[in-house]
Order: sequence, then structure tokens, then C-alpha cells
Amino acid sequence: MNEFDLIREYFTWPIKDPSVTLGVGDDAALFSLEQGYQLVTTTDTLVEGVHFSASTSAKDIAHKSLAVNLSDIAAMGAKAKYYTLAIALPKIDKSWLQEFSDSLRQLSGHYQVSLIGGDTTRGALNITITMFGMVKNSKALTRSGARPGDGVYVSGTIGDAGFCFWKLSNGLIPSNQELKRLNCPTPRVELGLALKNQASACIDVSDGLEQDLSHILKTSSVGAVIEVEKIPISEALLGHIKDTNDWSIPLCGGDDYELCFTVPEDKEEALKKLSESCNVNITRIGVVTESLGLQIKGFDGPRKSYQHF
Amino acid sequence: MNEFDLIREYFTWPIKDPSVTLGVGDDAALFSLEQGYQLVTTTDTLVEGVHFSASTSAKDIAHKSLAVNLSDIAAMGAKAKYYTLAIALPKIDKSWLQEFSDSLRQLSGHYQVSLIGGDTTRGALNITITMFGMVKNSKALTRSGARPGDGVYVSGTIGDAGFCFWKLSNGLIPSNQELKRLNCPTPRVELGLALKNQASACIDVSDGLEQDLSHILKTSSVGAVIEVEKIPISEALLGHIKDTNDWSIPLCGGDDYELCFTVPEDKEEALKKLSESCNVNITRIGVVTESLGLQIKGFDGPRKSYQHF
Repeated sequence: MNEFDLIREYFTWPIKDPSVTLGVGDDAALFSLEQGYQLVTTTDTLVEGVHFSASTSAKDIAHKSLAVNLSDIAAMGAKAKYYTLAIALPKIDKSWLQEFSDSLRQLSGHYQVSLIGGDTTRGALNITITMFGMVKNSKALTRSGARPGDGVYVSGTIGDAGFCFWKLSNGLIPSNQELKRLNCPTPRVELGLALKNQASACIDVSDGLEQDLSHILKTSSVGAVIEVEKIPISEALLGHIKDTNDWSIPLCGGDDYELCFTVPEDKEEALKKLSESCNVNITRIGVVTESLGLQIKGFDGPRKSYQHF
Repeated sequence: MNEFDLIREYFTWPIKDPSVTLGVGDDAALFSLEQGYQLVTTTDTLVEGVHFSASTSAKDIAHKSLAVNLSDIAAMGAKAKYYTLAIALPKIDKSWLQEFSDSLRQLSGHYQVSLIGGDTTRGALNITITMFGMVKNSKALTRSGARPGDGVYVSGTIGDAGFCFWKLSNGLIPSNQELKRLNCPTPRVELGLALKNQASACIDVSDGLEQDLSHILKTSSVGAVIEVEKIPISEALLGHIKDTNDWSIPLCGGDDYELCFTVPEDKEEALKKLSESCNVNITRIGVVTESLGLQIKGFDGPRKSYQHF
């Protein structure tokens, strides 16, 4: 099977988006942007042995590759539209490719994002997706808008993916729900879009709450105080924390793909409605302060956020 | 050195393009598109051991990573504007990174393309660049516009990169000029932009002339006749062909990054001027025909284009 057959077989399907003039199969893809909008673009790579283990299914790898990029676009308050896929494969494994392709196509359909181009090469398994979204001019939700007095919020529960990873690393068997949180994260697509009118800054929690919130604080030139007791935690992880008195997992565990954001006081009332309309829990965990740095109340033990190197 | 220090140190430099609202350092980058233009996007991966050898310099790897993407955008008749870089590195090697960064920045400056985002991960060396260009609505140069009677053209000389690769594979020492053609290809940026008003179809020669021209023919539902004697070949390669009576290298050697394009008869006169203004040789090697398939006059020996798998 040559590269072109492979692309035709596994990575070409009809594009329904009329703004795409040319998809997979030329030197480059072509698309239009509605007037009054800006392009938002992000790229994320998943590498075997780093972002997923050799035993992770092709279905989950495809899901996560797309989800982490959808999450970045959501964290900008933007609507995801298109993506390119650069995949390096050690060999042609048709059943693996079929499972990967089916999963990618299914999730693409669900979020209405179109695969418009890519590259397939031989090499150690590496999946790089570059995603494009659109947002109205000046409406993007960046990391730089947090102001003293804004509430600090997170969506969903924090630390589940990290807890699952901790269990796997310690020879324990995670529940299916915990495995799903690690391998099949749900990007907060609707919430991100809705937040662009309420939040002052936003980031997705991919490297750990402490580290990611600190990015907002540094970029916005502010500080914050959060309380560990207020962080929304699943029951199982809460049990583990009570046993060990260690909050490292929710503070430093990555891969949650929840949103962490700040909201001005006068918009906090409106925020409550978003939680219902987007069907996701939102929890206030602290407040933005003028004095720099992140102060964490309730835990001062050692902790270390995820480092890539 | 953590990921964020690495990005700050090696992959962040001032962006001069006013259409970029937000560059490296948020969840995603933000840019605007001038009215009346479409976005053109392409992605290309370079993997160690496949696209370059372990002995290739960081300078050349950076150059080639950018050049192959610039070449794809040029082949669309579009102006390259921005790119994202996803790089997987086996380890932090500061001198390697500095050399890679310097080379990338230098070439980016030369072609006025801005690095607006990316991802750095740990893994087998893999460089994936996704590039964005712009082209006036309906002006993109695709593979589908070739018509019977159009001339078939190529830029520069064909087969030099393949000849260099052949020499290396056979224990021979290529000249510096030959190594440059393989490791530091010159994307035909100016020519691609100029061709959008003259050519009916265009592709860049990355997988071999025979294979790449065939893509144009299939997509345009036409055929072509070309003559090997007309293909522009460097003197050294011509000597090799005379010795071996084998035209495989210019027909099937990849990595030339010259443009192959078709031009309607009434525009062939205007084309000659382009050659001068873009300072690149352009050679007519055949003609588009109604009968399908690619007919190659002057050589009917066995040949095999590059296959990725």
C-alpha cells in the first residue's frame, strides 16, 4: 500500500463544510474565512511512550489526538472548524489504521470539524494535529485578561486523569471511568464558546492546574489565592487524598482538559446559567489578587507539575 | 530546562506581521485574513532516518523542514505567511537547538514567514511544520486545471537531490553543490506566486517527476507525453545517465522541490518573461494530451518512484 492509497483509504471522507474549497489531495488545502472573524490555530503532538502507552487502543489515540486540540481551541472561546493530520507510522497495520480512522471520523462528525489535509510518513508513532478555529474579531479568550477581584473557576472535576495515571504507574487497576478520563478526555467545546462573553482569561488544564493557572497569572501580571478544599474532586480521588494528605494529583496531574478561567465579579451571576446550558459543573476555587504569585491554601507539601523534559 | 523555557529560548522571536494578533505562548495563535483572500494550508513532516540521516546538521534539518512547506504553498500560487512547528526531541541538546533555531529564524526572515505557535514534546526526532498562506479568491493554482494542448514545464534542473542520495547510498562522495540540493532545497517561492496568472495546474516535485506529474494528470483527467531528452539535467547527472542509460533518477528521484506545471498555449510567450524576472530556468518537457496516462519518450526501462511505506 503506497502513501496515496493509504490517504484515500483511511483519511479521506466527504467534507460538508462549504467554506472548504479544496480538501485532502492537493499540495495544500484551501478555505475561506467569514468577514469579521479571525483565525485561531493550535498544534498538539501525541507520542507513543510519552502521551500514551503501547497498550492504548487506536480508537483512544485518535480520540485524544483530536480532543486535546479541540480543547485548545475551546480555551480560546473559538469555534473549531478544520484540522490537518501529520501521522508517522512505524508500519502499515490495516486493522489499527481502520480503528484509528473510524474513531477520528466519528469524533470529527460529532464536533463538526473537517480533516482538510495532512502528511503520512514512516517513523516512530507520532500524531500531530493542527487545528483551525474561528472567533469574532477581538472576541478571543486569551490568558492575559485576568484582573484583581475576578473569581477563579474550573469546569468538571480536576485530577481524574492524573489519578488514573498514578494508579497505572503503581500497578493498580483504574476503573473504566478513570481510564476514560485519561484516554478519552471530553473537550469543553460548548463551555469555551459560551465563556468568551463571560470570562476574562482562560486556559485548558493540560499540564496541571497549578502550572496552567500560573500561566494565566503571569501573562495577566496578577496573582491568585485558591483553596484546595474548593477544588472539585471525584469521590475516589478524594479518598486517596484523605489517606495520603497529598494534594499533588489535583494540583499537578495533567491531562484533565477541563477549563480554568477567571470571571469578573459582575459576570459571576450570568456564569451560573452557563453551567446549566452547557451541562457541565463550574466551581469557584479562588480569587485573582493584585499581589503576584499563586497562593494555595490548605496544602503546602511538595509537588511537581508535569515537565516534558 | 522545562518546555516553556525551551520555547522561550529557541522558538520565540518578534513577529513583524501586523495581521498576527497573538503568537507563541497562549492556547492558540490568532491572525486575520485580508478580505478577498483564502487561506491555503499544508503540513509536512521530516523524520530522522527517513527524510534525513543522523549525520545531517541541525541547520540543514531546519532549512529543509521550512523549505518543503514553502514549496507546497508556492505550488498553490499562494503567498506563505505563518507556520506552526511541532517538534519531538529525544533529548535537550542546547547546541543542536541553537543551530536549529538560528537556521529556522534566518530562513523565516528571508521568506517573511512568522512562527506563530507549536508544540515541543519528547520523542524520536520528528519535525512537523504546518504552513499557512494566502491567495486571492479563486486564484489558487491546483492540480486539476491541465487541459489538452497545454505545455508541460519544470523549473530548474531535475534529479539532483536523487543523484546525491544515490551517491550517498552507493558509498560515493557527492559534491557540496549536490549535497546542498538534497539537504538545503530552494523552494520556488517567487515562481509559484508569478505562475498563478499563467499556469493551468502546478505541483512541486517532491516524490519524483513521473509520480508528481501523474498526480496533475489524474486530477485533471488528462494525459501527457514528455521526452526524457528535454528534461533539464545537471551535467554530472547527465554523465551518469549516459554511462548507465538509466533515466530513473530524474524520473523517480524525489526531493527536488522544483515546480512542475502546465501552461495553455496562449500564455507560453508570457511565461518566458517569468523565467527572467524570477531568475529561474523554465523548460518545456512535453505536452498535455486528451488520451489518459503519462507517456515517456526516450526511456522505457524499469523505474520506481519513492514510496513512503
